[in-house]
Amino acid sequence: MNIMRVILINFMEMKVYKGDFMSKMKERDSGLRGLKVTKSSICSISDGLKYRGYSIESLAEQSSFEETSYLLLNRELPNQDQLKEWSQKLKKYRKIPDLVKMVMDHIPSDAHPMDVIRTGVSVLGIAHPEVSSNPLKTVLRVLGVLPSIIGYWYARSRGKIFSVKTIEEDTYSGYLLRMIKDEYSETERKMMDTSLILYAEHELNASAFSARVCSATGADYYACITNAICALSGPKHGGANEAVLKMLSKFKTPEQAIKDIEVMLLNNEKVPGFGHPVYLTEDPRSNFIKIMAHKVAKKKNDMKLFEIGEAAEILMFNKCKDPCTFPNLDFYSAIAYSVANIESILFTPIFVISRAVGWSAHILEQREINELIRPMANYIGHEERNYTSIEER
Amino acid sequence: MNIMRVILINFMEMKVYKGDFMSKMKERDSGLRGLKVTKSSICSISDGLKYRGYSIESLAEQSSFEETSYLLLNRELPNQDQLKEWSQKLKKYRKIPDLVKMVMDHIPSDAHPMDVIRTGVSVLGIAHPEVSSNPLKTVLRVLGVLPSIIGYWYARSRGKIFSVKTIEEDTYSGYLLRMIKDEYSETERKMMDTSLILYAEHELNASAFSARVCSATGADYYACITNAICALSGPKHGGANEAVLKMLSKFKTPEQAIKDIEVMLLNNEKVPGFGHPVYLTEDPRSNFIKIMAHKVAKKKNDMKLFEIGEAAEILMFNKCKDPCTFPNLDFYSAIAYSVANIESILFTPIFVISRAVGWSAHILEQREINELIRPMANYIGHEERNYTSIEER
Repeated sequence: MNIMRVILINFMEMKVYKGDFMSKMKERDSGLRGLKVTKSSICSISDGLKYRGYSIESLAEQSSFEETSYLLLNRELPNQDQLKEWSQKLKKYRKIPDLVKMVMDHIPSDAHPMDVIRTGVSVLGIAHPEVSSNPLKTVLRVLGVLPSIIGYWYARSRGKIFSVKTIEEDTYSGYLLRMIKDEYSETERKMMDTSLILYAEHELNASAFSARVCSATGADYYACITNAICALSGPKHGGANEAVLKMLSKFKTPEQAIKDIEVMLLNNEKVPGFGHPVYLTEDPRSNFIKIMAHKVAKKKNDMKLFEIGEAAEILMFNKCKDPCTFPNLDFYSAIAYSVANIESILFTPIFVISRAVGWSAHILEQREINELIRPMANYIGHEERNYTSIEER
Repeated sequence: MNIMRVILINFMEMKVYKGDFMSKMKERDSGLRGLKVTKSSICSISDGLKYRGYSIESLAEQSSFEETSYLLLNRELPNQDQLKEWSQKLKKYRKIPDLVKMVMDHIPSDAHPMDVIRTGVSVLGIAHPEVSSNPLKTVLRVLGVLPSIIGYWYARSRGKIFSVKTIEEDTYSGYLLRMIKDEYSETERKMMDTSLILYAEHELNASAFSARVCSATGADYYACITNAICALSGPKHGGANEAVLKMLSKFKTPEQAIKDIEVMLLNNEKVPGFGHPVYLTEDPRSNFIKIMAHKVAKKKNDMKLFEIGEAAEILMFNKCKDPCTFPNLDFYSAIAYSVANIESILFTPIFVISRAVGWSAHILEQREINELIRPMANYIGHEERNYTSIEER
């Protein structure tokens, strides 16, 4: 068993002494980087990424979103009957409740979909309060309806008619795609299924940690998911894939990408989609979504964006001295989604829909620990001073 | 300068070696208790509670909510002109935006007001997105409108007419009171003003910490406040004052309170409103709200609840061997609010309205640190296992 040893004097002087497994990870002196703050049995990242002991490679290649969400929330892979029952339950809650619909009807078309999904989940918690005797029922309700919440608002905001027929869609990935585009190919569905698996969970990322801090107060499930959506909305967390496409869209050719990124590097600008807070040499998820992006692009005979992306990847590998030169999951998922004609404002909401599985596992696990998470701060402010009356100021 | 030294092997084996200032605080082995996770210049709790260097005693006795919110958000006490300008700005945003109103119109009467205020802030972020060039403007907008959001829904849900005249109310405490009850006395207003000062900030409490994790992702101000509201809704955090009244309401007399709490103690039940995650011997805020509760009760000639509360306090002091025998801020604030005829479901939303000041200071401070908060977990789950096909399961 690998053991990490941390000696903390105060936050600014934190030293991290690494065991073997830290070789792939970074040493940092702030942001709790590398500090183990709770125990968890959901996911390990120290020796490759694993969900409940299964490597992300095996899940990305052989599993489905339905099966992986079962695994994360029930600790074991399902047998055929269990998977069938789970998939049916996931389908059961696709219909958007009237209260949520009525609220969505007021939200303007130019709202950011992350604000929309945050509001939608908050209202859903009013429409269908948590059933404390059966927390998984509430989890399934939220997972089931999330694509509909985004799809309902998205259709309205784009002047389209919301298609209730999508409730018939067989797979979760197909259902999600039908909520955000008119039709999809099987290659696109497989790409989306893979991306949902890859995004489903990632240990104590900022939003999962935030959800655990929230869960530790005894807050209900909806509050914890809303809390996590808020954290994921930040550009340094879930907003990264949207930022990747914003950059790539500026490049007309691979040559221009190389030229412009070289300028960015000279100016010490951050290149979106490269590096990762915990991985030092590679993101174990990146290749799987890259393969999928390639398949979708090839099928559509639309290779330009992929080629621009790959040119950027090679340049970053050759140019950077910093270890953060590898593409992370967000880089090729932005390309895969874009080639599949998904609007970039929907990238982070798709991340929400997938990561809600991991958040749910963390929220429920934190309940078992049953202890408030309440750290302290290193006070560096003004020393004690006497209150003076306002006339004297 | 006091230094806390922490040696961490892993989360479950954390040992805390305390310096002098820890004498009033607890040693814990989980929940990040006692661990300094960031630097901050907002509030210190190690040697009495101070906001920006000013003791909570001096602020509770001599300041106002307007002045204290200025201090927390601008680092210094205001002079007369600054206070006047600040108070005017706080008044400017009392009007509830139409979009928020329309959404509130759909929220059912039996919703919990914490879910209502969470939804309200989420929608407010859509109605008036953050102005990045002037973050304090957005802070003032949220602080200004929070009582109206709760007041608007509350009036509707109780079949009353929402009074826009409250916009004329001179003080913030008066404005808040008019949003949640028909009329108020000056004693009640002073009590509310004091409670708003006492609740405004408390270092890295769970919701402020959660808001900082959210802010560190680069999420906007509304996302961070919504995130914090979610965390405050938990019964182990903001929900405590509501729980206090629920317990006290069961007691008809001080004698019955003593008898019933003795039974609770024998059964090792937690008595709401006693003890605190960071204070070991007393809550420095408790006496100020106790004095206010007493004043309101005396003025109304309605001493029963106060006497029941004091009987409980004395019993807890005499009976408990555990150090957590002192009433915390939530205990007498529940009594003060109740004697002032405020419905108990509004206690935690009042906490939100006050603590939003502290959250805002933390959100803005975290932006300056500009570093993602992303810890790790101590993995205790299943070891690596091979994926098997579903037919083999």
